[in-house]
Amino acid sequence: MSKALERREKLRESLILAAERSIAARGLAGLKTRELAREIGCANGAVYNLVEDMDELILRVGSRTLERLDAALTDAESKGATSPGETLVRIAIAYCDFAADNLELWRALFEHRMTPGKPIPDWAVDQQMDLFRHIYRPLATLFPKRPAAELGVTARSLFSAVHGMVALGLEQKLIAVPIEALRNEITSIVRAMIDGLALAARQGSAN
Amino acid sequence: MSKALERREKLRESLILAAERSIAARGLAGLKTRELAREIGCANGAVYNLVEDMDELILRVGSRTLERLDAALTDAESKGATSPGETLVRIAIAYCDFAADNLELWRALFEHRMTPGKPIPDWAVDQQMDLFRHIYRPLATLFPKRPAAELGVTARSLFSAVHGMVALGLEQKLIAVPIEALRNEITSIVRAMIDGLALAARQGSAN
Repeated sequence: MSKALERREKLRESLILAAERSIAARGLAGLKTRELAREIGCANGAVYNLVEDMDELILRVGSRTLERLDAALTDAESKGATSPGETLVRIAIAYCDFAADNLELWRALFEHRMTPGKPIPDWAVDQQMDLFRHIYRPLATLFPKRPAAELGVTARSLFSAVHGMVALGLEQKLIAVPIEALRNEITSIVRAMIDGLALAARQGSAN
Repeated sequence: MSKALERREKLRESLILAAERSIAARGLAGLKTRELAREIGCANGAVYNLVEDMDELILRVGSRTLERLDAALTDAESKGATSPGETLVRIAIAYCDFAADNLELWRALFEHRMTPGKPIPDWAVDQQMDLFRHIYRPLATLFPKRPAAELGVTARSLFSAVHGMVALGLEQKLIAVPIEALRNEITSIVRAMIDGLALAARQGSAN
């Protein structure tokens, strides 16, 4: 790599880290190109030599958040009882804890909307989709006869349901609950969903 | 009422309706005092003689949205099979359909954040809390022995889980699904949750 390319790469990394700190502190709405440029010591316009646009910058920060989330879910998956139902409960709780500990960065994952007409790049979609494996695997163990596409739908539904509980539970609105109470709620609802799905599967195969 | 007060009241209503049309068309981010003032034919500053601030204006629009949601849920509650489990499924589907049909106004209910340090006024909190009765009632029929506070927690969890499925399902992101598929997913997950909760209640009372 040439010296100039190397310097550009370093500056690009500094930019992404500066954006990450800014989002963590003030949320997506507080992100200002001018401040980031000053922080990493380059001209305002030079920011767009480092990333294509704000969308790319936010997606790069999101990618770092997803990497850490992935590590947290991997950790939860491997620890504790190996029953697939309890594994799913641990994954849900780990998701809740990650969101609580990384509130603004986690919110940014869902609040960010691409510039109208611009699709999310494939690398970002792939990274997000890849995270579903944490839910898919225990579900496949629980329901070995269910086709892959159907398991994919169930994984998505489970994720969305837990995400809803976490999102509204952590909002400073009327549904805000203490984190310990939220963990308990998630545990009983995930257990109920798994038990209910297992019951429906047994009844389905009995008919 | 004096002529002046009457005129103010009419203008205030026009303002709220103009804000509602604007949010429905362009979302919360597209709401501009200047445009609303022009639309109802008053000076920019005069808007704040009609409502206290943007927070109040957005909450008044939200109140109209919640009234219509309340009517849709009441309708769903009274129609069809009277079993409480199936009533909860119908309420969840009605919530999904309402969100799909009123996408931007429904999003605004959750995206709006009060000016920092300003609490949501009691009348708005009361109206939101009151909607939980649609979930609470069938749950109380399903679990007659459960204490009210516990039922309240379960109602909130059920709502949050369904809200999550609707919110991520309707987002134009990777989880977007056709509305008919989303309805089916919600139906099976709500049934699973109810069956699982009933199972846990039976096991709890058997121990």
